[in-house]
Amino acid sequence: LCPARGFREDPSRPGLRDKAMPRPAHGSPAALRDHGFSLDCLDSRGFLFGPSLAQELGLGCVLIRKRGKLPGPTVSASYTLEYGKAELEIQRDALEPGQKVVVVDDLLATGGTMRAACELLGQLRAEVLECVSLVELTSLKGREKLGAVPVFSLLQYD
Amino acid sequence: LCPARGFREDPSRPGLRDKAMPRPAHGSPAALRDHGFSLDCLDSRGFLFGPSLAQELGLGCVLIRKRGKLPGPTVSASYTLEYGKAELEIQRDALEPGQKVVVVDDLLATGGTMRAACELLGQLRAEVLECVSLVELTSLKGREKLGAVPVFSLLQYD
Repeated sequence: LCPARGFREDPSRPGLRDKAMPRPAHGSPAALRDHGFSLDCLDSRGFLFGPSLAQELGLGCVLIRKRGKLPGPTVSASYTLEYGKAELEIQRDALEPGQKVVVVDDLLATGGTMRAACELLGQLRAEVLECVSLVELTSLKGREKLGAVPVFSLLQYD
Repeated sequence: LCPARGFREDPSRPGLRDKAMPRPAHGSPAALRDHGFSLDCLDSRGFLFGPSLAQELGLGCVLIRKRGKLPGPTVSASYTLEYGKAELEIQRDALEPGQKVVVVDDLLATGGTMRAACELLGQLRAEVLECVSLVELTSLKGREKLGAVPVFSLLQYD
């Protein structure tokens, strides 16, 4: 993992390729099991893990996508990248007000994307129970951007 | 599903959102079980299904991504969209020559994307056993673009 190279290293790639990688079916993340009613996964590498977790936990899975990808009425939130700005969207009817959700992505770096996801979910009045990431780059202090929302990461790197 | 609206309807969205959706764990696609050694899933909605299938079948999962998303040496193949051209990439070392693969995507429409994926895999001398799609729009005859490669789709619409 090399932030200086622009987060283009893909933390999910080598693990997925390895068929001997431990699978959730053989070691479910207990931290998630008692949580919410919906998983929200982030476009597009969050898609690699969100549906598998949802399947394992018997939860529904809602997509948060980059701008322009979702049909129908959406709400959006923008976030800052190292090289500009971007927008995330969710469908306006994706969640009920008060619905509990856990947000899933592959990498927590500066936390900008995850914070935008939480803002989006706030617009729908969903309750974010936790943000979950496969990898966390701790030196970038992304979790500080998320305020009171708990963060769970499976692997931490400086 | 409405091709005239530019394939922006997302066939995977309502099903994923429903936590009562049948999950592979309760009805594995038998057609896949005896197949290859690797699943290749397509950026980005193929990511919603490929890893879950790979997990269920105990296979590795290799990512085929849009241009510029994968680090390291890649090979690429271009394909035609209704509104221009696009490129798919795979990492050069992702598969061994002769390795058997099944390609996974959410939607088979005109077949251009799936064909580009098969071309990519041909460049790595992998053997494509089958192309698998959640939804097939049969009137667009995408499977004819794939030549002798068998196509399996779970749902068919005109």
